[in-house]
Amino acid sequence: MSLLVVGSTAYDSIETPDGSREDCLGGSATYFSLAARFFTEVRLVSVVGTDFRDADRKLLESSGIQTLGLETKDGETFRWSGRYHADMNHRDTVSVDLNVFEGYQPFVPTEWRKTPFLFLANGHPEVQASVLAQMEERPHFVVVDTMDLWIDIARDSLLSLLKKVDGIVLNDEEARQITYESNLIKAGQALLELGPRIVLIKKGEHGSFLFSHFFQFALPSYPTEDVADPTGAGDSFAGGFMGFLAGRGRVHLGNLKRAMAFGTVTASINVESFGVDRLAGTEKPEIDSRYQDLLQFIQI
Amino acid sequence: MSLLVVGSTAYDSIETPDGSREDCLGGSATYFSLAARFFTEVRLVSVVGTDFRDADRKLLESSGIQTLGLETKDGETFRWSGRYHADMNHRDTVSVDLNVFEGYQPFVPTEWRKTPFLFLANGHPEVQASVLAQMEERPHFVVVDTMDLWIDIARDSLLSLLKKVDGIVLNDEEARQITYESNLIKAGQALLELGPRIVLIKKGEHGSFLFSHFFQFALPSYPTEDVADPTGAGDSFAGGFMGFLAGRGRVHLGNLKRAMAFGTVTASINVESFGVDRLAGTEKPEIDSRYQDLLQFIQI
Repeated sequence: MSLLVVGSTAYDSIETPDGSREDCLGGSATYFSLAARFFTEVRLVSVVGTDFRDADRKLLESSGIQTLGLETKDGETFRWSGRYHADMNHRDTVSVDLNVFEGYQPFVPTEWRKTPFLFLANGHPEVQASVLAQMEERPHFVVVDTMDLWIDIARDSLLSLLKKVDGIVLNDEEARQITYESNLIKAGQALLELGPRIVLIKKGEHGSFLFSHFFQFALPSYPTEDVADPTGAGDSFAGGFMGFLAGRGRVHLGNLKRAMAFGTVTASINVESFGVDRLAGTEKPEIDSRYQDLLQFIQI
Repeated sequence: MSLLVVGSTAYDSIETPDGSREDCLGGSATYFSLAARFFTEVRLVSVVGTDFRDADRKLLESSGIQTLGLETKDGETFRWSGRYHADMNHRDTVSVDLNVFEGYQPFVPTEWRKTPFLFLANGHPEVQASVLAQMEERPHFVVVDTMDLWIDIARDSLLSLLKKVDGIVLNDEEARQITYESNLIKAGQALLELGPRIVLIKKGEHGSFLFSHFFQFALPSYPTEDVADPTGAGDSFAGGFMGFLAGRGRVHLGNLKRAMAFGTVTASINVESFGVDRLAGTEKPEIDSRYQDLLQFIQI
């Protein structure tokens, strides 16, 4: 089944212990789409400026991503710049220029308003809610991402949104921040009480947890030796996860577990290069082969 | 097969967000033995002072632990006191009084010198080496634990010991400290180059990694909601791990994976109470039942 994603497209300037790169194609929706497209048709709703490179649009389209919803506005594309510490687990944001992303009100093309799988990438919860409201039919499965900023300044809107979605994906610190629980297992369970039927907590190099009312599941991350650039790890994880579920069409325990493993795989491939290079250059057989390696790595 | 452990016995005074306790029975060899005894005969070599409580000796003996090697010396038992931070992942050592443990030279009883499984709990690498040298036959499987202090002040002795053992168990920071590798997968592989055939890296609430030349394996920790006191988590993990392997008698991939899972289980039970109360009060069926829960929690 098709998968709609709404989020940012950006040009990132990144410095890691491995080197640095200027104006790489990035943004939450980009990483998500490039990870999800291995498994299903991906429909992208986002915004870019007039400086958006033709080559980047072609890269998305030739990867099979539907760009009907990729709007061009007067002005410059969203720019983000960051620097990673030696351990790659921490980063400083050097600068953020929202540019055309500032005040962006996503518009879901009419022909996409019955898409059954929907991912609301990180953004203001009211904007995320406005996307959900545009859907002609309530999608089969809706998942939101969020971040510390919205938990801080838009908690009520976020809590209200959580009552309307099927799942939330967030990192461990954000889970603690929303629930005020330091124990992550308690935080996951407390998140379930806020509305979602599925809570997916990302722990970076330490893997991920899945919570529902009826089961819990944990997965280590893939044993990646060469991390060149962690940017987009969370979004490419979510892309593999949602892409696999949409491709299968049914959300149940078995598919959720496999979806987490595929998300782990797409994230592990993504971090091996700056920007989206590695993810965009990967073919499906490598995804499947790494999935098998991951199973070996975790099965008793 | 039998399992010999050499390490400390202590009285710990512990403060956590859950409360505080004075002079709990503790020490690396104690936690290790109480976790290992579910699976095999455990032989304890350690030292206590004349203040060691009869009740504590009885607790060990009634748990099936062989105490022929538990020496009593004039003076007081080793005392440690620590305080855990709110997240339970960090602690400050408040005081350490080595007492009878200072300068302790472990003596392996003659009748135990052919024990096939040997665990050298955290201690000076030269003292650990002296225990190995006392064995009449080279044991079938020898594993060492270590800590930041020895990596700092006795690196050469530690590196020399690593060439003589089958495995090392240590935490993530220690693995990075020995190898100078910040990526944990590279650190694990670098440790293999130092001699051991098995490297077991403990990551606390984030689970554990196993490295060998021919396979890698990862396991999340058990989803424990109620952590009362993390003291002894690493030693009770090592106890479950070594105990299971000794009980099986054969060290191969399948048993190593299961041993890590049983170590994860014994550690998760241990942290649910102050000191050794929970571990000492547990029966084997609970261990087996939690092992099954853990499999559900991780299997795809």
